[in-house]
Amino acid sequence: MAGSPRRAAGRRLQLPLLCLLLQGATAILFAVFVRYNRETDAALWHWGNHSNADNEFYFRYPSFQDVHVMVFVGFGFLMAFLQRYGFSSVGFTFLLAAFALQWSTLVQGFFHSMHGGHIHVGVESMINADFCAGAVLISFGAVLGKTGPAQLLLMTLLETVLFGINEFVLLSLLGVKDAGGSMTIHTFGAYFGLVLSRVLYRPQLEKSKHLQGSVYHSDLFAMIGTIFLWIFWPSFNSAPTTLGDGQHRTALNTYYSLTASTLGTFALSALVGEHGRLDMPILEAKFKVQDTCGVHNLHGMPGVLGALLGVLVAGLATHEAYGEGLDSVFPLVAVGQRTATSQAMHQLFGLLVTLTFASVGGGLGGLLLRLPFLGSPPDPQCYEDQVYWEVPGEPEDEAQGPLRAEEPDTRA
Amino acid sequence: MAGSPRRAAGRRLQLPLLCLLLQGATAILFAVFVRYNRETDAALWHWGNHSNADNEFYFRYPSFQDVHVMVFVGFGFLMAFLQRYGFSSVGFTFLLAAFALQWSTLVQGFFHSMHGGHIHVGVESMINADFCAGAVLISFGAVLGKTGPAQLLLMTLLETVLFGINEFVLLSLLGVKDAGGSMTIHTFGAYFGLVLSRVLYRPQLEKSKHLQGSVYHSDLFAMIGTIFLWIFWPSFNSAPTTLGDGQHRTALNTYYSLTASTLGTFALSALVGEHGRLDMPILEAKFKVQDTCGVHNLHGMPGVLGALLGVLVAGLATHEAYGEGLDSVFPLVAVGQRTATSQAMHQLFGLLVTLTFASVGGGLGGLLLRLPFLGSPPDPQCYEDQVYWEVPGEPEDEAQGPLRAEEPDTRA
Amino acid sequence: MAGSPRRAAGRRLQLPLLCLLLQGATAILFAVFVRYNRETDAALWHWGNHSNADNEFYFRYPSFQDVHVMVFVGFGFLMAFLQRYGFSSVGFTFLLAAFALQWSTLVQGFFHSMHGGHIHVGVESMINADFCAGAVLISFGAVLGKTGPAQLLLMTLLETVLFGINEFVLLSLLGVKDAGGSMTIHTFGAYFGLVLSRVLYRPQLEKSKHLQGSVYHSDLFAMIGTIFLWIFWPSFNSAPTTLGDGQHRTALNTYYSLTASTLGTFALSALVGEHGRLDMPILEAKFKVQDTCGVHNLHGMPGVLGALLGVLVAGLATHEAYGEGLDSVFPLVAVGQRTATSQAMHQLFGLLVTLTFASVGGGLGGLLLRLPFLGSPPDPQCYEDQVYWEVPGEPEDEAQGPLRAEEPDTRA
Repeated sequence: MAGSPRRAAGRRLQLPLLCLLLQGATAILFAVFVRYNRETDAALWHWGNHSNADNEFYFRYPSFQDVHVMVFVGFGFLMAFLQRYGFSSVGFTFLLAAFALQWSTLVQGFFHSMHGGHIHVGVESMINADFCAGAVLISFGAVLGKTGPAQLLLMTLLETVLFGINEFVLLSLLGVKDAGGSMTIHTFGAYFGLVLSRVLYRPQLEKSKHLQGSVYHSDLFAMIGTIFLWIFWPSFNSAPTTLGDGQHRTALNTYYSLTASTLGTFALSALVGEHGRLDMPILEAKFKVQDTCGVHNLHGMPGVLGALLGVLVAGLATHEAYGEGLDSVFPLVAVGQRTATSQAMHQLFGLLVTLTFASVGGGLGGLLLRLPFLGSPPDPQCYEDQVYWEVPGEPEDEAQGPLRAEEPDTRA
Repeated sequence: MAGSPRRAAGRRLQLPLLCLLLQGATAILFAVFVRYNRETDAALWHWGNHSNADNEFYFRYPSFQDVHVMVFVGFGFLMAFLQRYGFSSVGFTFLLAAFALQWSTLVQGFFHSMHGGHIHVGVESMINADFCAGAVLISFGAVLGKTGPAQLLLMTLLETVLFGINEFVLLSLLGVKDAGGSMTIHTFGAYFGLVLSRVLYRPQLEKSKHLQGSVYHSDLFAMIGTIFLWIFWPSFNSAPTTLGDGQHRTALNTYYSLTASTLGTFALSALVGEHGRLDMPILEAKFKVQDTCGVHNLHGMPGVLGALLGVLVAGLATHEAYGEGLDSVFPLVAVGQRTATSQAMHQLFGLLVTLTFASVGGGLGGLLLRLPFLGSPPDPQCYEDQVYWEVPGEPEDEAQGPLRAEEPDTRA
Repeated sequence: MAGSPRRAAGRRLQLPLLCLLLQGATAILFAVFVRYNRETDAALWHWGNHSNADNEFYFRYPSFQDVHVMVFVGFGFLMAFLQRYGFSSVGFTFLLAAFALQWSTLVQGFFHSMHGGHIHVGVESMINADFCAGAVLISFGAVLGKTGPAQLLLMTLLETVLFGINEFVLLSLLGVKDAGGSMTIHTFGAYFGLVLSRVLYRPQLEKSKHLQGSVYHSDLFAMIGTIFLWIFWPSFNSAPTTLGDGQHRTALNTYYSLTASTLGTFALSALVGEHGRLDMPILEAKFKVQDTCGVHNLHGMPGVLGALLGVLVAGLATHEAYGEGLDSVFPLVAVGQRTATSQAMHQLFGLLVTLTFASVGGGLGGLLLRLPFLGSPPDPQCYEDQVYWEVPGEPEDEAQGPLRAEEPDTRA
């Protein structure tokens, strides 16, 4: 009994201390390692003989902003469908993404833009950091409602590092092309989250069943998220591609692919739905215990399919189809260093590497998050904002005291 | 009695089969006819001697994305004001626009960018396809709540073709200028929808009167739609204009026109409102049976007024006012092929052509949609998501069975 | 008794007449004074020898649109957290911003872009007008729920003029740098609103206490506003800066500053929150009677801190740090007209000027708004949409009649 208030005070300090620790460490690392790149530094840019119109900013910033909307509005509101978990969905999206953006700038910078002991940043760093945040939020979707903010921050810490390593292995070591982030973002984020969710498996979670559904207006909020993800997907895919025709073509392809998928999805949803009714098709895939947001259907399978399609496209790449443009799509094939078939094999190997990193990483992450002092929410408090947020309209009566004072989950 | 289950099964398959049929046909037509244009094709672009900065993508894509937001977020949520029809408003907007974007790429491409048997596509195709989707969604607004998704897809199929023909007649044959799509989008979309709605007239619709209103939060969702339409209107009008001063001037004019209209609208709304209260002024025009979304006020009248203003402006166009710029505003007047007065007459004729195409097309569409096997929702189920969507929080009790099993409307 | 219907009719006509008067006057002033600038005028632009790609439009318009989203979606929905005041928050944001955009184009144009008796406008005018609207909406936040639309329009009329004068004194006369609008927008808008709110102090306002809170879904709407403000902040700060590295660097700095602030905010909120729970941290600062939206915390203090940081940065500016870029950051220091220390002193003086203009202006504004015929809402009707809007779902019963007919506040 004597330990309970002390333990409660400890839990109370956990999130603020973790935030301050992570932010403090990140700030120091930024001060030591991060520098403006040539296009953002006043002295460096003015030293050269450029027209301001040549600055990378004008070619990438509009796409970056679209991606940024997807990460914060899209993912945040997509996950707001749970009837009593809207604050957490949007708020934790905010927290995790804000940390992931900084932390992945360091991790990705270490692997990709380290020059003379410094990481050089510009608009491309921002796009890449947002991509990593996207992967983290996909994983968040798999454990939505079953994990606290301190746990989620640690997940982000670990996942961002593994995301960076996996991306480095694929893009730099294997020379793999990863259009639209099929492997590095969708496949990695989904299976990292799913394996992590498996390790955190809770047999008694049915108790919160009544909170796992949506209500009419929470579904409309989720549709805001869905639509913003959908409309900006052409920017998501084209933001990091080569300038000119590459960016143009990628946006165009994504645009038409999305429209075709939408009709297919409506057909499928009406076909399998009870009484032929639609069920917010791509909007919110069928709710699954232990995969709250249906991450497997939304990102896992599509990511793997996209990667396999990439294998096929690489195998069929010819100089006739791409002309001089082959150089920017499959450069190693263009210069004759690889055959198209070899490129296809490398693509396939990249998928296997990704699945391995994601699974092992997710497993490690799950074990980490089971550490008892991390205060996982007890089963009856899952999918419930009130554990973490001041919720308006809830009377502060005595009856709620014991619920909040309940012992944290110590199954680990 | 024996026919009823069979008929129910038929209705159940109708939407998925129609989706798959339309999507399949569209995919085949794309494979046969659609090709990348010079600015999106890797081989063609790299063959030329361009700077990547010259790619049309950078001049048009930000405006395209704004238009895309308007079509999906703007129209989708604008129509979400009905208290029990939010899923259908947003969801059917998604479905119709996704089909219209593909189908109008084919139709508009056939009329405007057919070269050597192929339709060449790029960012301008995407903008134009979104414009056509806008017209379709305006028409959708007129029949909102009274038509099923299969009916609406057929409406889209027909309207997109007529939209393409009307646009071709105006822009290519008559040499008409259609700033902001006053005629081709707003006038055409509104009167097509209104005539179609007239043909589908339901004298008994009052039964669903209690569902035709909004509730507090559904109105706030509708305001999301309204605001996104309002703020991106400068992009809508400037997206397809000539580069440079033309695009700049159009955005600026739209920006100031919108602000002035807003004050006028508040004045009018406060003046006519009961007790001087405001009534979500431009937000959702007064609800009218048979014109659910107030399309006549929102798009019909403004479109005609805009077209008449265009007649006036054309008649007053002088070389003094536009300088060398006259060439890009009224090219036929600039080169002396037409007088300003003749251009004005052509503009007026363009409006009459549009009204004719819209009315005849809407009439044909209405007859098509009255085909009995299309399963129009019975009067008591109008404005009700539950006919088409799994709605959360609704117990799956027996009482609802008979409602869904009710005979479809066979007034045709 | 006889005067009451006449007075009611007078109040009823007040808003429409004020709207029409302001809009009419603005339209006349536009016709007399406003002209296209070189980049938007057809004759002027085509007379020069430019590439269309050089048009300012392409460097500024995407950022402008982001700022425009912030003003209308961001501020509008940020203030929608009050449970019965969502229509007013979004609707009055619309009205005030629409007027401020026009009126500040005239005021700012008079001070900054008057050539040959004419104000020359282009995309930069649009950005600057949106900035002024931002300041007005910050002030609106301080009096949210306690003022009617006619009062707010008069506040906008006055504040826009003072905003323009203050900006002119700082930027043109004192040669102050105001990165991110710390002084001219945030400090000015906040203290103008706070002093005005102080003058309008209502000792009895506790009566409406029950309406001052939020409800679950109104908080989610407010989070839409918050997130759109957060994600586009890099565009807000970079929209008006010098092209090239300046714009790039500003966006990058804002991006990383925001992410770091977010973790800090979560830490602080969890630390001070009851039971360690989070309280929609930056989302909606703690509700304060007489400062509805927590404007002091959100804009006032941060604005002053930003300004003081600007003093520090100016004092430390060296040619070594900025290279040739110093010319665009602190031009007077670069050309040797001022020492860095002198620049720092000017920055500090600019802050004092801003606080003076804001306080005196807010005081004057408060006295103006207390004029009895302006019909301030009586205490029990504060924070209540129904005074100004047709609210759906409210039966038009007799009981509400007397409430609306109640005498207006005549404390002045």
